[in-house]
Amino acid sequence: MRIVTKDFGGQVMITGYLHEMDEELPNIKEYPSILILPGGGFRICSSKEAEPVAMEYFAAGYQAFVLSYTTVTKKPDATFDDPMNDVAQAFGWLAENKQHFLMADGKLALLGFSGGGHLAAAYSTRADIRPDALILIYPGIVSSAHRALNCPDIPERVDKNTPPTFIVGMRDDQVTPPYHQLAFADALQKADVDYEIHIFKGGMHGISLGNSYTSAGLSAAVDPDFAQWMQMSKNWLKKQFGDFMVYGQSDGAKFSVNTPVGKLLKDEKAKAVLAENFPMALKAGENPQAKGMPLLSLIRYMPGDHDDVIEELDKRLKEI
Amino acid sequence: MRIVTKDFGGQVMITGYLHEMDEELPNIKEYPSILILPGGGFRICSSKEAEPVAMEYFAAGYQAFVLSYTTVTKKPDATFDDPMNDVAQAFGWLAENKQHFLMADGKLALLGFSGGGHLAAAYSTRADIRPDALILIYPGIVSSAHRALNCPDIPERVDKNTPPTFIVGMRDDQVTPPYHQLAFADALQKADVDYEIHIFKGGMHGISLGNSYTSAGLSAAVDPDFAQWMQMSKNWLKKQFGDFMVYGQSDGAKFSVNTPVGKLLKDEKAKAVLAENFPMALKAGENPQAKGMPLLSLIRYMPGDHDDVIEELDKRLKEI
Amino acid sequence: MRIVTKDFGGQVMITGYLHEMDEELPNIKEYPSILILPGGGFRICSSKEAEPVAMEYFAAGYQAFVLSYTTVTKKPDATFDDPMNDVAQAFGWLAENKQHFLMADGKLALLGFSGGGHLAAAYSTRADIRPDALILIYPGIVSSAHRALNCPDIPERVDKNTPPTFIVGMRDDQVTPPYHQLAFADALQKADVDYEIHIFKGGMHGISLGNSYTSAGLSAAVDPDFAQWMQMSKNWLKKQFGDFMVYGQSDGAKFSVNTPVGKLLKDEKAKAVLAENFPMALKAGENPQAKGMPLLSLIRYMPGDHDDVIEELDKRLKEI
Amino acid sequence: MRIVTKDFGGQVMITGYLHEMDEELPNIKEYPSILILPGGGFRICSSKEAEPVAMEYFAAGYQAFVLSYTTVTKKPDATFDDPMNDVAQAFGWLAENKQHFLMADGKLALLGFSGGGHLAAAYSTRADIRPDALILIYPGIVSSAHRALNCPDIPERVDKNTPPTFIVGMRDDQVTPPYHQLAFADALQKADVDYEIHIFKGGMHGISLGNSYTSAGLSAAVDPDFAQWMQMSKNWLKKQFGDFMVYGQSDGAKFSVNTPVGKLLKDEKAKAVLAENFPMALKAGENPQAKGMPLLSLIRYMPGDHDDVIEELDKRLKEI
Repeated sequence: MRIVTKDFGGQVMITGYLHEMDEELPNIKEYPSILILPGGGFRICSSKEAEPVAMEYFAAGYQAFVLSYTTVTKKPDATFDDPMNDVAQAFGWLAENKQHFLMADGKLALLGFSGGGHLAAAYSTRADIRPDALILIYPGIVSSAHRALNCPDIPERVDKNTPPTFIVGMRDDQVTPPYHQLAFADALQKADVDYEIHIFKGGMHGISLGNSYTSAGLSAAVDPDFAQWMQMSKNWLKKQFGDFMVYGQSDGAKFSVNTPVGKLLKDEKAKAVLAENFPMALKAGENPQAKGMPLLSLIRYMPGDHDDVIEELDKRLKEI
Repeated sequence: MRIVTKDFGGQVMITGYLHEMDEELPNIKEYPSILILPGGGFRICSSKEAEPVAMEYFAAGYQAFVLSYTTVTKKPDATFDDPMNDVAQAFGWLAENKQHFLMADGKLALLGFSGGGHLAAAYSTRADIRPDALILIYPGIVSSAHRALNCPDIPERVDKNTPPTFIVGMRDDQVTPPYHQLAFADALQKADVDYEIHIFKGGMHGISLGNSYTSAGLSAAVDPDFAQWMQMSKNWLKKQFGDFMVYGQSDGAKFSVNTPVGKLLKDEKAKAVLAENFPMALKAGENPQAKGMPLLSLIRYMPGDHDDVIEELDKRLKEI
Repeated sequence: MRIVTKDFGGQVMITGYLHEMDEELPNIKEYPSILILPGGGFRICSSKEAEPVAMEYFAAGYQAFVLSYTTVTKKPDATFDDPMNDVAQAFGWLAENKQHFLMADGKLALLGFSGGGHLAAAYSTRADIRPDALILIYPGIVSSAHRALNCPDIPERVDKNTPPTFIVGMRDDQVTPPYHQLAFADALQKADVDYEIHIFKGGMHGISLGNSYTSAGLSAAVDPDFAQWMQMSKNWLKKQFGDFMVYGQSDGAKFSVNTPVGKLLKDEKAKAVLAENFPMALKAGENPQAKGMPLLSLIRYMPGDHDDVIEELDKRLKEI
Repeated sequence: MRIVTKDFGGQVMITGYLHEMDEELPNIKEYPSILILPGGGFRICSSKEAEPVAMEYFAAGYQAFVLSYTTVTKKPDATFDDPMNDVAQAFGWLAENKQHFLMADGKLALLGFSGGGHLAAAYSTRADIRPDALILIYPGIVSSAHRALNCPDIPERVDKNTPPTFIVGMRDDQVTPPYHQLAFADALQKADVDYEIHIFKGGMHGISLGNSYTSAGLSAAVDPDFAQWMQMSKNWLKKQFGDFMVYGQSDGAKFSVNTPVGKLLKDEKAKAVLAENFPMALKAGENPQAKGMPLLSLIRYMPGDHDDVIEELDKRLKEI
């Protein structure tokens, strides 16, 4: 991995945790991505809602970014436009570096906690270039005098261009009670936008992953039920963005690129497909060690880059 | 287990799946209970939302009941009052048989699917004797002309006496779209009632457990994300009702009734507690086989019923 | 469900928990089955390793049976042959009633705990008619003087006819330490039999499901890691026996019996398949309510039993 | 996080992924650690068994290190002593930097895959300074001519000083069949060392996390059952090393440092404990916003570092 940072000035900074090309994983040429906006009521950008969260998605194969946006601590006369501009700058910078950062097209999620969730929702309902999916963890949604910055009312801004959204809240959250999250779900439903919402029983505001690691020692911050949101959000993102390419899966076909070479060579039709599309397998397949090897593994052992024929081979073999 | 049934006439019938006293489980003298109202739009009582669901809770230690209530198939001129009366009769019958059925006090949940969910919500917001918890799976909530019976509007009836509620819906349910479930959550929040709500992405109406068993062969009825509702509802119920009694758990105390007898007898204070509260342990503990046995196991091997001293012993031993 | 019992005399008895035909689940015409042999060192048949376990499998769609076999309490001069004969009788009775009990062919598992595991392993390595899969939970395997009955040494009897086996043990089990389970895995590996083995850290003997329900109040009997064995065994059985039939799943085909009728009727080829195989769908599909319905649902709404055409339709539609 | 590297020469290199002090998580002053030895038959150090694995543990709160050790590709005349020396060097370097890297004392695990597992097991049974826990994923254990390096036979070297071990294998692994893993478990059992072993059904060698991310596109490398090993290993490590400090958890005491300040001030005894140990809470607690706040949160809002009184306060409050 490599860590990249970009300083936008005024203590506004983005940090990226990036996977690089791994020649053992030639099916992955680019990664889905996520940009995280920590919470903190626009007073701070909470560290426990930053890197620990980024690392969860990174470990699942995401290019993960954290934006430390403008707060009233950094800029006492800040308005809501300041962090909005920060997010816009971040999106611009990500767009510029998309290829360089191996970010897959159409697979950039924006995640915000609490005040950062309010910001993420505001950005996703107004910006020209929006995220492809939105994840909001105990976000503020309705305008509120309690914040350090004057936050806009989000529901009225929701329309069919709002990205699909995954929302989490807690029943007894005193800072951003569920009426925030329910109001957003309601607006998404009316605008016919895809979404998922989970409001869990109990709750203390701001508990991040809900496990011992981000608990700061508070037992009320360890909540195994709430903690399910992380895995649930990964499952949901996989439905939005699709999964990493896996060949020959789940289809009951007789052959695929996952069939052992020896078995393919015993079938006349399969042999013919190989002869036409990847003739060097015929000879290589005579090697006793190769016989038990899935065709895909054999292809990757051969010198040269043959990934362009895999899809065609897989299709042709499945048709047999 | 034993299966009990009661015929209320007019093809209205309740079936109960009952645990009985198990002398190997002397800590369980009564069980939490659940009454299930299957869906079916008041045309049928869906069998795939009946026994398969009851068995899930039964396997988790619940006394589980299924009510086959009045539908327009059973009674063409039925009104919504008919199934409401059926539920009231069922509650009355359960109350009468509470001790006989080993049903724990204050631990009766009512669960309804779809139209049965509308019925469960209506009953729970109007009846004199209400369930202690309510579980609604893709329920109707708002009054609707599409039902075979004219269903009332629930949200306006919610007040602080509405039981704590666990709600599940699906984003793309065309029969009871999420506005039903969101409206109920909204009303519960305003009335300050405890609740949990989960609206999952996608969805086809009426898929019960969301697994292959209740799928009827429809691949759209197999949804591993939605299928999580069953375990989540069990976790939620455990928070409402508490768990089966487990002695001496999780507390860092030096001794408890789970401490091996040999270890207790080596400590003067622990020995004194035993001498005072359960003197026959002193002699029995000299048996080599008893030394490695938790005190609780030894107590239960002794002739007679000594469960009344367990709580006192546990308390005294933990204070050491 | 219905509960059946058969008394074999001498206090030997089998109890069956049986699913019946459910017309809402026409894809399930028969069920996989499991026969449970509780533990108890041949002194008792432990109740907490009987019904609570049967109910877990029943809830997952199994026909579940519990055998209360001969113990030295029931018959003081019993030998190991006695419970062996009991199991043989039980298998005979199940074979006779296979159709009557809706038991799927080739899908009968035998599960044993502790001494019942020793018995299950002995039966599975000697009997003429063996189970199709074997599940052993903290079983005895090596002959031992500590048992009430003289148990045979199992490993030497393992050959390629031993059924595939799922084995669970606990590192600190003092009654049937892991050398029992490891010895069996070793023998299965050498005989090239399929198996899975899990030895968990810690442990107290005889804790059944490892949850609060079967704990008898002993905190040492609640072990969330060990408790995973139940779900793991269900996953493993699904690989051995296959799953309930689900049509049109996971294959990227354009059409299947799960495609909404309206979509099929818009495609000339799909329409032709319907015209040939299920012509009444053409007319029924004009109904506005039918258009959004999966073909499979429509078929089942039509009068008559048409399940025989589903497989052919699914195959033909997928080929388009 | 920060990434550190150390070049030991000869293309041998260690990479560390390090958490740093986070002032929002003052209960974490040091982290458990893990050193990963990728597999590759001593021909390569497999990249898909390196960083993706390190990131899983890092995300769970570990300081994670990967050692790229000597292979025959790097050094054609290498012997097994070469990678052994590499591991020793790595351990030495970690010991030197323990405080600097915030590594908790007595909480360093060593994890090896395949050939790296053989290496990890060899090191853990011979070295002077050994890891505190050992994790072996489809490791080689028995000496084998098939490896690029001549690997020692491990079982005979196991004694009571071998660290507690978590072992995973797959039934149909053709490269390191389960007899390797079973032999090690057997040796650990005989030497009375703590361990856990899981051999899963099926299997292809070298599939790392068993999910789509590390599959390289091979459907046979995606195995949800095998993939459970990662979470299981984290659970097991938590039992070995303990969890991050969480105050006032799970104990049924009336008060703790997690009790809201307002509630403490209403109790005379609790108030007295505060007066004695943390008097500034008395005044601060009068603030309406502080009343609902857990005492622990209030303490951390106060200027200065007061973490030294938390433990004492928690103890005293629980005794009330």
